[in-house]
Amino acid sequence: MISRRHLFAGMAAVSATGVARAALAALPEPVIRTTADTAAPLLPPDGRPYQPVVTLNGWTLPWRMRGGVKEFHLVAEPVEREIAPDCTARLWGYNGQSPGPTIEVVEGDRVRIYVTNRLPEHTSVHWHGQRLPNGMDGVSGLTQPAIKPGETFVYEFEARRPGTFMYHPHADEMTQMAMGMMGLWITHPKGRHPHIAQVQRDFCFLLASYDIEPGSYTPRIMTMTDFNLWTWNSRAFPGIDSLNVRQGDRVRIRVGNLTMTNHPIHIHGHEFQVTGTDGGPVPPSARWPEVTTDVAVGQMRQIEFIADEPGDWAIHCHKSHHTMNAMGHNVDTLIGVDHRGLAARINRIIPDYMTMGDKGMADMGSMAMPLPENTAPMMTGTGPHGPLEMGGMFSVLKVRPDQKPGDYSDPGWFRAPAGTVARRVSIAEAAQVPQAATAGPAHAPVGSPGSPPSGNAPLQVRKPGGHGGHEH
Amino acid sequence: MISRRHLFAGMAAVSATGVARAALAALPEPVIRTTADTAAPLLPPDGRPYQPVVTLNGWTLPWRMRGGVKEFHLVAEPVEREIAPDCTARLWGYNGQSPGPTIEVVEGDRVRIYVTNRLPEHTSVHWHGQRLPNGMDGVSGLTQPAIKPGETFVYEFEARRPGTFMYHPHADEMTQMAMGMMGLWITHPKGRHPHIAQVQRDFCFLLASYDIEPGSYTPRIMTMTDFNLWTWNSRAFPGIDSLNVRQGDRVRIRVGNLTMTNHPIHIHGHEFQVTGTDGGPVPPSARWPEVTTDVAVGQMRQIEFIADEPGDWAIHCHKSHHTMNAMGHNVDTLIGVDHRGLAARINRIIPDYMTMGDKGMADMGSMAMPLPENTAPMMTGTGPHGPLEMGGMFSVLKVRPDQKPGDYSDPGWFRAPAGTVARRVSIAEAAQVPQAATAGPAHAPVGSPGSPPSGNAPLQVRKPGGHGGHEH
Amino acid sequence: MISRRHLFAGMAAVSATGVARAALAALPEPVIRTTADTAAPLLPPDGRPYQPVVTLNGWTLPWRMRGGVKEFHLVAEPVEREIAPDCTARLWGYNGQSPGPTIEVVEGDRVRIYVTNRLPEHTSVHWHGQRLPNGMDGVSGLTQPAIKPGETFVYEFEARRPGTFMYHPHADEMTQMAMGMMGLWITHPKGRHPHIAQVQRDFCFLLASYDIEPGSYTPRIMTMTDFNLWTWNSRAFPGIDSLNVRQGDRVRIRVGNLTMTNHPIHIHGHEFQVTGTDGGPVPPSARWPEVTTDVAVGQMRQIEFIADEPGDWAIHCHKSHHTMNAMGHNVDTLIGVDHRGLAARINRIIPDYMTMGDKGMADMGSMAMPLPENTAPMMTGTGPHGPLEMGGMFSVLKVRPDQKPGDYSDPGWFRAPAGTVARRVSIAEAAQVPQAATAGPAHAPVGSPGSPPSGNAPLQVRKPGGHGGHEH
Repeated sequence: MISRRHLFAGMAAVSATGVARAALAALPEPVIRTTADTAAPLLPPDGRPYQPVVTLNGWTLPWRMRGGVKEFHLVAEPVEREIAPDCTARLWGYNGQSPGPTIEVVEGDRVRIYVTNRLPEHTSVHWHGQRLPNGMDGVSGLTQPAIKPGETFVYEFEARRPGTFMYHPHADEMTQMAMGMMGLWITHPKGRHPHIAQVQRDFCFLLASYDIEPGSYTPRIMTMTDFNLWTWNSRAFPGIDSLNVRQGDRVRIRVGNLTMTNHPIHIHGHEFQVTGTDGGPVPPSARWPEVTTDVAVGQMRQIEFIADEPGDWAIHCHKSHHTMNAMGHNVDTLIGVDHRGLAARINRIIPDYMTMGDKGMADMGSMAMPLPENTAPMMTGTGPHGPLEMGGMFSVLKVRPDQKPGDYSDPGWFRAPAGTVARRVSIAEAAQVPQAATAGPAHAPVGSPGSPPSGNAPLQVRKPGGHGGHEH
Repeated sequence: MISRRHLFAGMAAVSATGVARAALAALPEPVIRTTADTAAPLLPPDGRPYQPVVTLNGWTLPWRMRGGVKEFHLVAEPVEREIAPDCTARLWGYNGQSPGPTIEVVEGDRVRIYVTNRLPEHTSVHWHGQRLPNGMDGVSGLTQPAIKPGETFVYEFEARRPGTFMYHPHADEMTQMAMGMMGLWITHPKGRHPHIAQVQRDFCFLLASYDIEPGSYTPRIMTMTDFNLWTWNSRAFPGIDSLNVRQGDRVRIRVGNLTMTNHPIHIHGHEFQVTGTDGGPVPPSARWPEVTTDVAVGQMRQIEFIADEPGDWAIHCHKSHHTMNAMGHNVDTLIGVDHRGLAARINRIIPDYMTMGDKGMADMGSMAMPLPENTAPMMTGTGPHGPLEMGGMFSVLKVRPDQKPGDYSDPGWFRAPAGTVARRVSIAEAAQVPQAATAGPAHAPVGSPGSPPSGNAPLQVRKPGGHGGHEH
Repeated sequence: MISRRHLFAGMAAVSATGVARAALAALPEPVIRTTADTAAPLLPPDGRPYQPVVTLNGWTLPWRMRGGVKEFHLVAEPVEREIAPDCTARLWGYNGQSPGPTIEVVEGDRVRIYVTNRLPEHTSVHWHGQRLPNGMDGVSGLTQPAIKPGETFVYEFEARRPGTFMYHPHADEMTQMAMGMMGLWITHPKGRHPHIAQVQRDFCFLLASYDIEPGSYTPRIMTMTDFNLWTWNSRAFPGIDSLNVRQGDRVRIRVGNLTMTNHPIHIHGHEFQVTGTDGGPVPPSARWPEVTTDVAVGQMRQIEFIADEPGDWAIHCHKSHHTMNAMGHNVDTLIGVDHRGLAARINRIIPDYMTMGDKGMADMGSMAMPLPENTAPMMTGTGPHGPLEMGGMFSVLKVRPDQKPGDYSDPGWFRAPAGTVARRVSIAEAAQVPQAATAGPAHAPVGSPGSPPSGNAPLQVRKPGGHGGHEH
């Protein structure tokens, strides 16, 4: 009953590029990829009715069927990853990139994964969140011997439950995850699951942080908290693709965290629910409405919402330093300010310089410091209204009423309807002298329904034309 | 149908202080405030049946009605904030203070907010959590041009859903939030909402952290983790007002986090539920009982409970360094110890000095170091039973049976009923020689229902008068 | 109705060791313990049908009954704690160890706790999460005077609600918790509670972090984030006992966090639910399926699952630096690599040394640096398949079908059934030349149901025998 058609369907994306050479040998040939572009979703073969995921700035690993088993081949190896324009890192990853390719299967699939180690040290692969035989759990020393450099190991198990998972080493774990070794694993439900909705768009990415000194290429693996590159799928804004959806789509975003701290993922303009974790679907009775969900380390969260508000909506980690690129927190200077005067620049570093007048300019010489090579600008990105001054874990959710089904290419910037954009008040409006108003008898009493905990300090009214600042 | 009464009701708090000058001009005059006292709640005009919030050490911004629209005027500007007695910071805020005033409206209100920029650099205001037209979302570069110094912008949208929100810049975000630019936004439900309870007390505050070197006044904006001032509404204990409630009140506390780390908010003596987030009300089926809720960055949490235990109950962040003031973690000396002997002091720095006897006193000279100017003591605050040794994110929930409705002023310290306070055991009691007891036949067997995972080490009984310490 | 039998039942574990001397005096004699082995659970007296907890590498404090009150005696004092083999810390704790003994009672019990202070400075005990009279809450200065050195205080209250709690000082809190002062408190439900399941195994531990410089013994108390020892009950792997259960057991693990950061506790091979917090039982409708739960500071989480997968399953904090011992993140050398060549060693520090060839070996002299005294190796532990390369917050959940009821001793390593362990692919298999495959007509179209957000980059197939590495 297994036809050639089924045997090779999973290799579609490969063959389409003209370089496919499938194999019926013991080991499937490893498929590699060397760019950071977002690949087209890997279409399921006919008869498998699931909506494939879009791996942000990543890709899904093709497989082959052999004897009813889906066979994959992962190669652990040094890679080069463009984290952002002008910023490339020498990482460790799988099949040419970090993160490794997404493995995407269906509940009940029997899966065989060959893992070849081309790293200079031993490794293993732990299939985080999966139900599997203990010996397939990938903890080197505990459940298997480590995979030595040059060796190939084979893992085999059934994808027993649907959900969002990941894979990463469980050997010299701190080093290997600090170097970028990780990948996503999606198991689609076999049929309809009462707690798993059908979605039109299904995105996924992993949170990773790196400590790469400006001017260098290799992460410092001992860093515990002071990372300077905060990434989604090892990409930093403006290197992260936008999430393009059609107005009315049900959208799922799957996020896993392999950094050293929590990341509160925030979406503008929409409320969402966490509908699943790496532990399974969250029952509807247990779901919370959120605009920011805190993804803890070693956790995966499935966010879902109806994209019913058209526009360009920011989606980002809400920790402000995580939406900055390198040099964001440990250098006493400022990069990326290119369109304001010197006083404004000083104010970026010594914010009350103009106001207080008690700071000098002597230490501003470093302002002239050029960017080291291979350093992403710190406050960067340009939108339809000017600089975004962002970096790191930031992207844009683009919701369009006219995004055609089957075409989720980038629609460009949103054109807001007239009168719906925050606007500058004209000089004529602002200069208008306000009329005095008398206090009428209808004013409500102050302080009830209760006196304040402490004093009741006075408010003052300031004329619009008046000057603010410190009250000396 | 809009009467003068309605037009000016929102200005009540202003007019009552005798300085009100309402205006029918294009721009409402900005109302400012220069103290850190907790203002009386701003009474809703008649016919709007909501319980106004108490902004801890803050205030609610008055508004005016014009053409059916509630008009507010925010002024972004440098401010001086007393963070605690003897500790004033030069921050950036709104309308004279940091955080800015709370904006408090009702579901369905149409709202127009003028924002004047008196900062030395451009800014914008993002209305975190709101449903609104994309052009009103306040992300400079993406949804609008930045507001340049001297300019006034106008935002307008409907408060579409009830809840707890906040506002903050989305322009040079890291700098401007590190400088204190943030404020709360409360939208009360229009009618009865099945998942929004009526409460007698409704407090709100924002979590903010600063890195202000002892002796200086301006935050260091590049700091990512090593903050030294952890605040609620930019105040640190003992500068935070108590939360005064009546026994039996249903109390709501709304907390939002704009720091760089999670803050586990802990309340003594009561369990609570999180009844809502910035995403909306949490359905009752999904609520957890808690005594500590972890508020992630960019999240808001509504805590609710019945205050049924009379007393003075600590409420604080449970990270121990966050209930300390500056110098809590990076200075090798100790401030604020004023009532014990030298040996005890050394033990605070070198805890086993007395016990181990292997440490000298030579490096204790720094004990004489005076506090730099403008530095809040590190372990401070005095209660009815002596020093509290606290700071930072700490306050007291005062539950009293006799707190009169309509009078929520500070009731002073709790007077515990006789016999309900932990007491010192008298010398006579402690010196009493214990009687020996024989092992009876009723002693249960050890180790079942299971042997321990490893060995079963012996216990020993020590005489109350015996001396402890290391067993050399 | 109170018989001698009941009076002394709680002292069972003591008397069984032959050193018991119970007392009817005012103060019960304090029971101490000086080892870090896991004690056998303290059997409840007859007629109290609860399953006692196993305190991992800890113990439960015996008590005596007097006049219907359970009496305990805690002694706050300096202690020595073996954190791991070759690593002993001088901490502050209770009754001879850090953490202090677990207090285990039943809902409705009246409890009297004597606290003797043998520390060089004052202290207090806060009963975290309990409902109690305000004066028994243990906040020095606020609810009681501090307990001075040499003094004994007495606390008394009813254990009003079942759950997982803890105790710790609320006096010089930062110092005393950094020194290890903490303990667990378990209140079992009186009868059947609809949301509290009966379990076969019930483990508990507290998360604590220390900053002990390699070669020294005493924690640095000012550290806020850069801890180097991450512990469960003040033990670090390989010093943490395994959690031994029978296949099919319902297992509860109670975890509390008194560090300065969140700890995502991850279990391999099983999904679990959080069934309770220090606020009470989580209603079933509100529970989430998880494989990693993020335990925030000052929070307690009750994890429950059916141990239905036989094997040795890792259980650990998922922050990679927290499964390392000291020197894990601030020393430029590497300890614990003993079975690979020099090139591999260099690659552990400068991961792309071999590949890039642009790094020298001059700074490798420190590789010869011997371990300072009293330092646990950084990557340690040995399993059935070799080195585990772990440390810190890591242990193993051992699930066995043949673990006899009433015998939960360590069963040794799991023997996986033949064919269920990840295996090395033989040279013969790997060397096999793959057959070329032609692209058939059945290949699915690429890119639908939607074009990618950006470009559609090519995939390549690499021969299994080919060499990876950077693509220069």
